[in-house]
Amino acid sequence: MKRFVPTLLMTGAALLGSAIALPAAAQFAKPEDAIKYRKAAFTVMGTHFGRVAAMANGRIPFDAKAAADNAEIATVMSKLPYAGFVPGSDKGETKAESKIWTEMDKFNAAATKMQEEMAKLNVAAKGGNLDAIKAAVGETGKSCKACHDNYRKE
Amino acid sequence: MKRFVPTLLMTGAALLGSAIALPAAAQFAKPEDAIKYRKAAFTVMGTHFGRVAAMANGRIPFDAKAAADNAEIATVMSKLPYAGFVPGSDKGETKAESKIWTEMDKFNAAATKMQEEMAKLNVAAKGGNLDAIKAAVGETGKSCKACHDNYRKE
Repeated sequence: MKRFVPTLLMTGAALLGSAIALPAAAQFAKPEDAIKYRKAAFTVMGTHFGRVAAMANGRIPFDAKAAADNAEIATVMSKLPYAGFVPGSDKGETKAESKIWTEMDKFNAAATKMQEEMAKLNVAAKGGNLDAIKAAVGETGKSCKACHDNYRKE
Repeated sequence: MKRFVPTLLMTGAALLGSAIALPAAAQFAKPEDAIKYRKAAFTVMGTHFGRVAAMANGRIPFDAKAAADNAEIATVMSKLPYAGFVPGSDKGETKAESKIWTEMDKFNAAATKMQEEMAKLNVAAKGGNLDAIKAAVGETGKSCKACHDNYRKE
């Protein structure tokens, strides 16, 4: 078994350019499944973003290859969770604020912002310049926090 | 915000060929983090594989594009969970059998088998032939079950 980071052969720009609309609500049998899915996708994204952030913040040594690999996975993952915010999934094992579903346009804009910042971080990480990575981690982190402040309980 | 499946521009073969060894144990601050991560990665993988399987089994209508997109994500995800089976993560909120850590070579072989079958499913899904997808879903499902039977409690 190989533990590895796939070479996805794509840039953040290509990723953002390849939008495919999916019928989100049809993809989950139950709201609980959607909640579990989106939390899982955020967990995986956060793990990989967190490693890049730890390098940017000097908590772990900077490793350009590891930064690029983790940013790549975080960028792929950043696209996934939002399909899980289906109607009816504001109840249950979730910290999601119910206003997500009453102002979905604003929520979607905040999600897009994060996806864009993560894609920029991916580009920066591929470039290998630590100062650029630090700046991009800062902007990405801000976009995470903005959404958490507005749309996550606790 | 765009809900979409990224075009990853890679084949299963390319994916399997781009192995990068990661120092798995160093990546998680606590065993609980590793457990949460691997469960999350399996959840995302299972969701996307499940959609292809549902088409293969006729539970939902076959949609070649959706099958290919979901198989692609499942294939990317199949690489991620195993970094979470770090030493010391046999205790806690996990159904992982402790023998994973005493026969890691066998466990890794079972993981590799699943990754290979998923990559084949990805190729089949890109081809768009439902019979080929059905066969690949069957083989992939067998590789999931083999590992669950051996290494997952309950």
